[in-house]
Amino acid sequence: MNIDLNANENLDDLQRDGLKIIQRSDFFKFGIDAVLLAYFTKAKSPKRVLDIGTGSGILPLLLSSQYPNAHLTGVELQPDVADMARRSMIYNNLTHRIDILCGDINMLKTTMQKTSFDVIVSNPPYFKSGAGMGSPNDYKHLSRHEIALTLGQLLDAVHALLIPKGEFYLIHRPDRLVDIFYEARKRTLEPKLVQFVQPSEGKAPNLVLIKCIKDGGKELKYLPALNVYGADGNYTDAIHDIYNQAHLTAFNESE
Amino acid sequence: MNIDLNANENLDDLQRDGLKIIQRSDFFKFGIDAVLLAYFTKAKSPKRVLDIGTGSGILPLLLSSQYPNAHLTGVELQPDVADMARRSMIYNNLTHRIDILCGDINMLKTTMQKTSFDVIVSNPPYFKSGAGMGSPNDYKHLSRHEIALTLGQLLDAVHALLIPKGEFYLIHRPDRLVDIFYEARKRTLEPKLVQFVQPSEGKAPNLVLIKCIKDGGKELKYLPALNVYGADGNYTDAIHDIYNQAHLTAFNESE
Repeated sequence: MNIDLNANENLDDLQRDGLKIIQRSDFFKFGIDAVLLAYFTKAKSPKRVLDIGTGSGILPLLLSSQYPNAHLTGVELQPDVADMARRSMIYNNLTHRIDILCGDINMLKTTMQKTSFDVIVSNPPYFKSGAGMGSPNDYKHLSRHEIALTLGQLLDAVHALLIPKGEFYLIHRPDRLVDIFYEARKRTLEPKLVQFVQPSEGKAPNLVLIKCIKDGGKELKYLPALNVYGADGNYTDAIHDIYNQAHLTAFNESE
Repeated sequence: MNIDLNANENLDDLQRDGLKIIQRSDFFKFGIDAVLLAYFTKAKSPKRVLDIGTGSGILPLLLSSQYPNAHLTGVELQPDVADMARRSMIYNNLTHRIDILCGDINMLKTTMQKTSFDVIVSNPPYFKSGAGMGSPNDYKHLSRHEIALTLGQLLDAVHALLIPKGEFYLIHRPDRLVDIFYEARKRTLEPKLVQFVQPSEGKAPNLVLIKCIKDGGKELKYLPALNVYGADGNYTDAIHDIYNQAHLTAFNESE
């Protein structure tokens, strides 16, 4: 199939069910975060799945193969990025299964049908507005900092759109864990399962995967921490397994 | 020195600064929890330290040697247990440095001077009332279940008694982490530092150490997880170091 690629865009092979994805070489190459979040998402046969802040659409693509009977919606604020994601869905013949909505979830949550998703996932901006290094690139800056979407706003949208007992899967930075637990419980999105990701054995975690259940009971469980690198400096078997389960062989760790 | 021992009581050598402690063989032998909490308590030269739910007084004893210039107070609800702790302080000639108060912290917090402690530590009841196995022993049951002291009540007392920017060190079960973060932040006891303790590498954590600062800024940091046992089934070097730093050679893990 012919597909229109803009400047700086590449068509990358996901090596999974023949899926390909349009990415920009200067930013929006998906990272390990998206792969980890797809791996951590273990809902049973969801019918409707939402990804908030979908970027290139990597999560709907990965989850479309993980959940062959699900309809998936990705919401992306930035028109150029949403357009890129849409062209990926066209290329993969997935427009009947994946919608890309372009807009601000703070507005969209009032136009979309309330309590209509079984599962919501998000790889949201990690940094508080003003915190962290400023990015010279606006696209990247918006996707990494809580400028257009704070954690509280994200959780408000999740609460509005998730069915009762629906599942919310999130990847974030461990230094925000008090914020996440506090703001989630305040909205009855009860944190139920946590898995820390650490660069290597004996290091403090630098990512955390969290599953919340809307109106879930109060008990938090843990999966053993994931080490990304072994003592030899290579990916651990656990990380290889996760990429293999996703049928991904390419490691694109630039964010 | 002669010391009166009741039935089932032993005088155990802490092998630290010549300290000894009276314990009962059937319960109230201190466990790894108390040793880990003393190790994790890294306040700088506190003047006044409080231990809520002090049991045999193990934490004031360990911290008296860690902080030679501090005055320490232990609060214990159960009269027989408080009496046992007091006799340990008499035996160690520490009655000028360690007070054991017998009473309910929910009442005592109103009679003790508000905002008067630099540091508070607690190894509180881990289980919600009704949760977990019932204990045939009332002493043990009260010390393990939130019958006389819930997490919220503990944090109310900590907030009332801690100076601004004072430090609260807690050991608890990881499955209560959402409760702890939520209830602590609600009272402006901001969680600042976390260290998980796991039985061995690759296992989910079964204990968690948490430091909160009253009116502290919102950023959580992590120490690398502690493994208790190595692949050989023996204590790891990290655990040996912690016991050695405490000059403790006896491993009394029964609770």
